Amino acid sequence: MKALVYHGPGAKAWEDVPDATVQEPTDVVVRVDTTTICGTDLHILHGDVAAVTDGRILGHEAVGTVTAVGDAVRAFAVGDRVLVPAITQCGRCEYCGRGMPSHCQTVGGIGWIFGHLIDGTQAELVRVPYADTSLYAIPEGVTDEQAIFLADALPTGYEVGVLAGRVRPGDTVAVVGAGAVGLAAILTTGLWGAAKVIAVDSNKFRLEKALEFGATDAFEAGTDARSDVLGLTDGLGVDVAIEAVGYPETLLTAASLVRPGGRIANIGVHGVPVELPMQDMWIQNLTLTMGLVDTVSIPTLLKMVASGRIPAERMGTHRFTFDRMAEAYEVFGNAAANSALKVVITP
Amino acid sequence: MKALVYHGPGAKAWEDVPDATVQEPTDVVVRVDTTTICGTDLHILHGDVAAVTDGRILGHEAVGTVTAVGDAVRAFAVGDRVLVPAITQCGRCEYCGRGMPSHCQTVGGIGWIFGHLIDGTQAELVRVPYADTSLYAIPEGVTDEQAIFLADALPTGYEVGVLAGRVRPGDTVAVVGAGAVGLAAILTTGLWGAAKVIAVDSNKFRLEKALEFGATDAFEAGTDARSDVLGLTDGLGVDVAIEAVGYPETLLTAASLVRPGGRIANIGVHGVPVELPMQDMWIQNLTLTMGLVDTVSIPTLLKMVASGRIPAERMGTHRFTFDRMAEAYEVFGNAAANSALKVVITP
Repeated sequence: MKALVYHGPGAKAWEDVPDATVQEPTDVVVRVDTTTICGTDLHILHGDVAAVTDGRILGHEAVGTVTAVGDAVRAFAVGDRVLVPAITQCGRCEYCGRGMPSHCQTVGGIGWIFGHLIDGTQAELVRVPYADTSLYAIPEGVTDEQAIFLADALPTGYEVGVLAGRVRPGDTVAVVGAGAVGLAAILTTGLWGAAKVIAVDSNKFRLEKALEFGATDAFEAGTDARSDVLGLTDGLGVDVAIEAVGYPETLLTAASLVRPGGRIANIGVHGVPVELPMQDMWIQNLTLTMGLVDTVSIPTLLKMVASGRIPAERMGTHRFTFDRMAEAYEVFGNAAANSALKVVITP
Repeated sequence: MKALVYHGPGAKAWEDVPDATVQEPTDVVVRVDTTTICGTDLHILHGDVAAVTDGRILGHEAVGTVTAVGDAVRAFAVGDRVLVPAITQCGRCEYCGRGMPSHCQTVGGIGWIFGHLIDGTQAELVRVPYADTSLYAIPEGVTDEQAIFLADALPTGYEVGVLAGRVRPGDTVAVVGAGAVGLAAILTTGLWGAAKVIAVDSNKFRLEKALEFGATDAFEAGTDARSDVLGLTDGLGVDVAIEAVGYPETLLTAASLVRPGGRIANIGVHGVPVELPMQDMWIQNLTLTMGLVDTVSIPTLLKMVASGRIPAERMGTHRFTFDRMAEAYEVFGNAAANSALKVVITP
């Protein structure tokens, strides 16, 4: 089969590799019909994720068709159309039992293993461990181009942003960073009845998209953003600030926008420490959350996509075939400048 | 009347001042029968709280007897025995309505006003604004020496530590810092069914007290503390880490003790920024909470003291009369070395 193989920082190739096969009775093999690229893949290519070594097939998002099943698999059969999510869950450990497979102890303590600890989804075939508890059947009426964004981007914005931030009816929510994941938060915040959703980003295209995706207001990041937001919120700030970038300055911006008693939901993947002004924050009764997605909201999101309430397909702005994988990475690697959100990659 | 008056950093005096009087129809005046000193009073004397100016009477904790009531007061009458809590609440603003008078907008945006924005409780008499919504009647069977610790220390440990940290049955809880507030958290963590309560402190007396107050294990702070705690928690860490000191290193210790999916409840009053290792923390699905006490748990705590389930009186280790206020500050100002927890000060 062909696959996108990592060869150390900055190096990758779409090349021939041995076919993925069933190795454990709980495995299935999925033929990849659609995949995409995540910001995390770019981090890996920058050499930021030491656990990813030369020879690893990249990618952790796929929609595909089951082509082989292990003897212990009960929920899926050859020919089934499935969603391969970013997180693998054994279904039995303490963390899976608590609905927190982001830390599945069985698969290595971190549930994100595709394109990280095992071969990933940017390939013609992918082996999926613990298939019964990890895969999701895709309902009729949900297209591959909708489902692919439920593998990671949409549940991340929803779980790590909206749910962790405990958005409640009437809340005002600020989303700092309107890339794919920030837009996913904007797209799903309304489900919990937010009264206002304010997008903050430095990129004009993203701010336009934010308004299309359901933001009620959009402000350019920078020195005026705080006063712009306070002007909309009685001078006290928002109830929930969602950070969807992963830099110290964007987390500090999110923290500066929230009112006493508010919640800061950090989605961003950080690479360096963040100096929090605890001397000002301690007295404000704030809650700061952070984390890896569990992808356990996928059944909810599939229903919302099927019923037309979440237009997931709008996340895909650029389309490529497998043989143009390198070009897909170039476009996504400079997404803001290319007016790109997520790329859709098919055979 | 006599009162302890602040005269700028490092300067205070027990001196004659005009009697406290009813100024608004919602005020009462309380004769102070018992007061105490809080770590915050020490911060003020160090000059750390700019809002406290020369001439301010210090203190925000008292048990006393009502001596005068304003025309609008309905819930209290002359002669009533009352608890004056650290937080004043108007009872009508958005924050009071949400049970968060720590940010009562009517009294100035911060509910802590005694010995801060208005005259305090280290005095023979104290004026209490919004008495109907701020004072608590003390039930029969609860002594002054028990009730005084419910003005601030106990609700702070309970609300900002145990409740904010969402301690649940079966949880393992670490408490970093076993001073009065950390001990208050230890004393109340059992109410929520913690399986293990681990105290971490650098002071031997405090670790002994922690075990007396309900800790199941006690470890000396330092390089081994983390491995000691991990050794008790399957190598993953505690469910909830409560920080009760207010230094960068103690918050980082608390953060280092918590397992994936855990909660860090910061109680400490911080004076400087804290560099959080977000590059390691973001993926651990942690929640960090912080805040000023609301004191809304006082009715709960009064019931638990009355029923004998919280031995609040054990917090008081040293007794002084009003005229020995300076000595009380000296002992409390160096509490760990003096084997002191809280001081009890009476006429």
